[in-house]
Amino acid sequence: MRIKQILARRQDCADLQVRGWVRTVRRGKEVLFVEVNDGSCLAGLQLVLPAAQLDAGVAAGLTTGACVWAQGALCPSPAAGQHWELQVQQLRLIGASDSSYPLQKKRHSFEYLRSIAHLRPRTNSFGALFRLRSRLSFAVHQFFQERGFLYVHTPIITANDCEGAGELFRVTTLDAGQPPRTAAGQVDFSQDFFATRTGLTVSGQLQGELFACAFGDIYTFGPTFRAENSHTSRHAAEFWMIEPEMAFADLAQDCQLAEDFLRYLVRHALEHCGEELAFFNERVEPGLLPRLEALAEARFENLSYTEAIAHLQASGRDFSYPVSWGADLQTEHERYLCEEVIGGPLFVTDYPKQIKAFYMRQNDDGRTVAAMDLLVPRVGEIIGGSQREERLDLLQARLAELGMEAAALDWYLDSRRWGSCPHAGFGLGFERLLMYFSGMENIRDVIPFPRTPGHAEF
Amino acid sequence: MRIKQILARRQDCADLQVRGWVRTVRRGKEVLFVEVNDGSCLAGLQLVLPAAQLDAGVAAGLTTGACVWAQGALCPSPAAGQHWELQVQQLRLIGASDSSYPLQKKRHSFEYLRSIAHLRPRTNSFGALFRLRSRLSFAVHQFFQERGFLYVHTPIITANDCEGAGELFRVTTLDAGQPPRTAAGQVDFSQDFFATRTGLTVSGQLQGELFACAFGDIYTFGPTFRAENSHTSRHAAEFWMIEPEMAFADLAQDCQLAEDFLRYLVRHALEHCGEELAFFNERVEPGLLPRLEALAEARFENLSYTEAIAHLQASGRDFSYPVSWGADLQTEHERYLCEEVIGGPLFVTDYPKQIKAFYMRQNDDGRTVAAMDLLVPRVGEIIGGSQREERLDLLQARLAELGMEAAALDWYLDSRRWGSCPHAGFGLGFERLLMYFSGMENIRDVIPFPRTPGHAEF
Repeated sequence: MRIKQILARRQDCADLQVRGWVRTVRRGKEVLFVEVNDGSCLAGLQLVLPAAQLDAGVAAGLTTGACVWAQGALCPSPAAGQHWELQVQQLRLIGASDSSYPLQKKRHSFEYLRSIAHLRPRTNSFGALFRLRSRLSFAVHQFFQERGFLYVHTPIITANDCEGAGELFRVTTLDAGQPPRTAAGQVDFSQDFFATRTGLTVSGQLQGELFACAFGDIYTFGPTFRAENSHTSRHAAEFWMIEPEMAFADLAQDCQLAEDFLRYLVRHALEHCGEELAFFNERVEPGLLPRLEALAEARFENLSYTEAIAHLQASGRDFSYPVSWGADLQTEHERYLCEEVIGGPLFVTDYPKQIKAFYMRQNDDGRTVAAMDLLVPRVGEIIGGSQREERLDLLQARLAELGMEAAALDWYLDSRRWGSCPHAGFGLGFERLLMYFSGMENIRDVIPFPRTPGHAEF
Repeated sequence: MRIKQILARRQDCADLQVRGWVRTVRRGKEVLFVEVNDGSCLAGLQLVLPAAQLDAGVAAGLTTGACVWAQGALCPSPAAGQHWELQVQQLRLIGASDSSYPLQKKRHSFEYLRSIAHLRPRTNSFGALFRLRSRLSFAVHQFFQERGFLYVHTPIITANDCEGAGELFRVTTLDAGQPPRTAAGQVDFSQDFFATRTGLTVSGQLQGELFACAFGDIYTFGPTFRAENSHTSRHAAEFWMIEPEMAFADLAQDCQLAEDFLRYLVRHALEHCGEELAFFNERVEPGLLPRLEALAEARFENLSYTEAIAHLQASGRDFSYPVSWGADLQTEHERYLCEEVIGGPLFVTDYPKQIKAFYMRQNDDGRTVAAMDLLVPRVGEIIGGSQREERLDLLQARLAELGMEAAALDWYLDSRRWGSCPHAGFGLGFERLLMYFSGMENIRDVIPFPRTPGHAEF
């Protein structure tokens, strides 16, 4: 039985077995107290062993980190803070540990734990974090599947380099030192694996749109990549993204979906990950729980970008980045708007077209597009989306205006050639969401094995 | 309302709206019959329009492929094969089509449809296939989450090249034509993005094992890659894989999980994708439904590899590949065993160690390992797994025997250094499963945008 189930029992039990990893060993005069965790929940089960029962070989390996099997009677515990303990009748050492184990009982910095990312899942913090990650991943699927959205696996390797969302990693099987060359001396990518230059996707949106134009409502949930040499706490080279896309939806419906989605996830976390959130609230970010509870009930407000700029200009604040119509909003601006102007989550809509991607739907004013960003207190932007330009002539004109090669996107334009329809969607970086839900401040601490410049260990 | 819900209605309705894409237009003397599909299900809804009501502009664009909105009364249909039709009061052409639309009403070959993979989701076959894919993806998560398995996102970009599962794609940001060089003239990968040579993962198993040694039961479900120049109908360069891993499990428990999992998925498909499976049964593989129904109820048998070889040698068959103890089983052998010896699904276990990976647990006979393959009729191997070698000394000895560099796997060996435990898991290629469940014979036809040698379109 997993420890989560054992601790939830209402009755004692004369014969129960448990397996897990030793967190602490305390040696009393006559008994040993051994706390065992099996990863099913934050709390461990306390084993109480008659010291005389242990042979010397077992006693030597029975230290923090060891793997054990125990059988005994589950009894009410006289100790504070725990309902149950296991009065051990038999104990087996499955895998010994010793004093060189890197996770001895003391609090380690997150930075140190990153250097042993293969062992950190055995700590309280990362146990809680990866249980939250798993549970929320499933909640993402539940939300969309309950609503009839189709899950699409968009391609990871892509020959598109014109999405403009960021720098691409190149994917190749060419000899790195002696690549084949054309007559002109250029690298001959026609001899590469895919007979063209390919990279890792930065977004599944364009392919997702094609599926929305067949199935109506779809979503993606998969890895995406940025080859940016960013050394911040918010950027990773590899991260997971969720991108829904809805045929026949306009920007208002897109905002409604984003609101429903975020509210669903926060309620799901509060309901199903209470133990983990309480831990983060106590150890990582005091105030996390009331913040999430407020989000679950909050009213989501709207401001146009133009209104937002007016608020920022009227604020009298001395921002690091200047505010002017046409410039992108920085985190400091976003936080001011949602924290001080609104006091809660805020959609900013209808951004200047020159700071947004080519596929966003052009508004009638000729200078803005039907884009939205959802801003939340403490973080700023957490979701970005738009209605897409479904009018072929306007989309082609925009590509030409930006000097982009329409031929490479001909397949995408086909969705506007035959049976085009209004549609809208958004993207949510899953790690950003986990940071928001856990209070963790470094993206490297919410993904199992982070990939950042100079780091691809494990 | 989606057409799936409309067609399931029990009562007529005086005022109903529908949106979707036109599959066919039939012009009668006084009325037009327009079949509309919205991707929510295989069947379309028949619209009946008074011909006089259409203006000429709308009529011209109202052809196969057009996107329409219609409002009218849902009435019992006099036509054969459909319960309902919509007597249209208003119709709007959202996106016109014309005679150049590549999916005119006729049956196209799967090969042709591959060349328009961005439009093929609008066909019956691929509509059904991608609904099945979405539904089964969710069922994978449901199965494991209901059993308390933790979902892990293992890394896509990896510096490990010693897993032995296949050729790696290289991931790089170095200048392809002028890479930096060391003093010795070699490409200087220390200047690459991750400061080392990196590639795309072939499996998340090793990282998954580390999580199993913290959480007990875990699973992965993500993209994996093979840079093999295979032009068969069963190999793609990019595909999705499911890899569960269980701490404290032996090979028998591993087989039991594989059996439970496959049975769950086939029952889920029969229950939730009946319309799609009936379509595949009729159009793609006659006999599909009875085959899947038999699998749902089948007894899963066991043979050791050694017994399997004896059966093959006693068969008197003239196989293309010779049979001898120590040689890997080919599909022809696997099919003979499960189709003719057993007549149903079959686990073959305990393979010679020289044909299996370094991490598999060594049996006491000194020549076999605790591996299993699950073979099913018509396909052969569908799942491959093993108990893992949890004994540090034996694992190190095996690495040395194979001439592999233990230093690069030091992080992996750490899981055997402290608190090691028996554990086991398996891998299932999701596309192979979809081929098995749909009768589709080419892997390119079960993945949205297939990546194969020379092909990374869309």
